[in-house]
Formats: sequence, structure tokens, C-alpha cells
Amino acid sequence: MKLLEDRIVKDGVVIGNNILKVDSFLNHQLDINLFNEMGKEFKNLFINSSVTKILTIETSGIAIAALAALHFQVPVLFAKKHAGLNMDEDVYQTKVFSYTKNLEYDIKVSKRLINSEDCVLIIDDFLASGAAMSGLINIVGQSRAKVAGVGIAIEKSFEPGRKVIEDMGIRVEALAIVDSMQDGSVVFKKFK
Amino acid sequence: MKLLEDRIVKDGVVIGNNILKVDSFLNHQLDINLFNEMGKEFKNLFINSSVTKILTIETSGIAIAALAALHFQVPVLFAKKHAGLNMDEDVYQTKVFSYTKNLEYDIKVSKRLINSEDCVLIIDDFLASGAAMSGLINIVGQSRAKVAGVGIAIEKSFEPGRKVIEDMGIRVEALAIVDSMQDGSVVFKKFK
Repeated sequence: MKLLEDRIVKDGVVIGNNILKVDSFLNHQLDINLFNEMGKEFKNLFINSSVTKILTIETSGIAIAALAALHFQVPVLFAKKHAGLNMDEDVYQTKVFSYTKNLEYDIKVSKRLINSEDCVLIIDDFLASGAAMSGLINIVGQSRAKVAGVGIAIEKSFEPGRKVIEDMGIRVEALAIVDSMQDGSVVFKKFK
Repeated sequence: MKLLEDRIVKDGVVIGNNILKVDSFLNHQLDINLFNEMGKEFKNLFINSSVTKILTIETSGIAIAALAALHFQVPVLFAKKHAGLNMDEDVYQTKVFSYTKNLEYDIKVSKRLINSEDCVLIIDDFLASGAAMSGLINIVGQSRAKVAGVGIAIEKSFEPGRKVIEDMGIRVEALAIVDSMQDGSVVFKKFK
């Protein structure tokens, strides 16, 4: 998606050859008009998938999922990493390791809110190791809902995430695919 | 806002006389069309406030702020409770106690993303003790930006939050004001 790639070039900050900071528009400050366009694009990509629910995970996926949901006209459900005291006890849960926080989380989704009739599009800001997405796919599996696919804003293609998910037979769509980063700049995957 | 009050009556779950669970539409599963209407209402309420930025806090405020931002046509900034390893070191921060998690957090906002030119609308899902909102107001104060006001989805008027904020001279608008809860039902504040 050219709009997102252009924004990464303009406002992303590359640190070393692995860190891409996009906190001025994607995961700390949020450019909602960009997210709205991203939501339209996700809808175009998954238009034939009969999506009934969008699933994401705290924190950075939430606003991206919310704007996508406007276009899909379905609810968003976010898996909780930091469940409050009021959270249902009857939950689907699994463990996810976060490399950016160097912590393992129990992620939880209330059993009431997802079931075998659902067809779930999973959305997140970044795809790198695939750990968070695998956790969400695990939770959808526990509920016996169907996974429509995984929609990602920015994929790092030099990390194993896509292979991990596609090996489960699940479709992955990323709006910007970063093939490499060096000397402060980003090389995107070329599409024919 | 009648739409939100009606939804609380329909899908909210009252536990004891203090807990209102709204996880099926407001803070675990999210009804984005409802949030869109709430965003319109916030825009109507603060139409003369020259808002340049919407500030919220992880996690439940994010999607509400995101849909409001569509109507204000300004960016959203969310204070991080769980900053990753990539977070800027140059941050405004303060401590906030969460009663629903029984934990104290350091909340952080990158100094790059807010400044004295900004006029900030602070948005969150619930107003109860006022601790989270006071923390965000503190951060806006550190940046020397102006606070346009505080916009809340659901206020518990029997908690001190509104008084805490109004005593700072800051306007508070809540879309639904719960005066009391008992026997499983909610009594809303009556407006003349």
C-alpha cells in the first residue's frame, strides 16, 4: 500500500538493521485518516471472506482494527494481556512471548464473545516472529471459529512470522512489507 | 446520550453496587458503530474548543479516541502503561494507580509528540476515581499544552472523579452518567 510505504519512508525511524520506529503515526501517536485508508484496503483484500469479527491484541492493534471494523461493519474483539479484576473467569487463553518487551504474557479472550459461527480476521500492527499472531490463532482454534486470515500493517519479511502462519494454511496480507533495513533506510518488497 | 444509555441497559451487567461490566460492547468486544456515534457526540460537545490532539491511555480508551478522532480530524496519542524497549527515553511521565488492576503504573508520553501549541481533548472509557485522568492532565501540563476538556463514555457519579477534574478548572463531559447501581440495574443521571 503506497500510502503506508510513503509514510514509513517519511516518518519512520530505522535503528540498526532490525528496529523500525513508527511511533509518530502508527503505535503511539495514531494517524486516524491513514488508519481509515488501511481499513478500506483490508476490506478490499478480504472482501470475499465473510468476516464476522475482527480480533486483535493489546495494544497497538486496537485502533487499526477499530478503523478496519468500520469498513467490515463487524465488532472488534481484543485479547487482553493485562486483564483487570472484572474480567470473566471463563476465558480462552494462551501464552505469548513479546520480544519488544522481553516478557511472556497470558492472553485472554472471554468465551462468551467468540464461537464456532464466527469467521475471524486477525489484525495487528507488526508481523515479526509471529508469536502474537500464533497466540490469537490458537485462541480462535479453541473457540472453533474459522480464521479468515491475518491482516498486518507492517511485515518484516526477514523474520519468520509469515512462514509460521502460512504453514498453518492461513492467509497473510501485509500492507507494507519491509525486506531489509540498513543505513537508516527501509527497503520494501517489490510487487510485480 | 440515549444510544449509549440504552446499550448499557441492554448489555451492561451490574455486579454488586459498584461494578458495571460492559465488555460485550465497550472494553473487550467493541461496537464500532456505537463508538462512531459517540465520536460524533464528543465533536458536538467540544466543537468550539479548537482541539489539535486527542490523548488517551492504554487500553480501553484507544478505540473510543480513534473513532472520535475521525470526527475531529486530529491525531490520537495514547499514554503507555507498558512501554516497549523501543520507547523514546525522552518522555513525560507520571504515576497512576489503577483500581481495577490494583497496581500503580508509570504512564509515559514521548516529548516529541505533544507541545505547547497543542489543545488536547482527553478521552477515556470510564471516569471513577479520576486517577487516570489526573495523570493525563499532569502530562499535558508538563508539555505546556492546553487541556480542552475531558470526554468520558461512562461516568460513575458516586465516585470522586468529576470533582477532582472540575476542581482543576477543567471541563468534563460524560456521555452516560451512572448515579447508582443496585439489584442488577443502573440508574442514570436525569438531565432537565
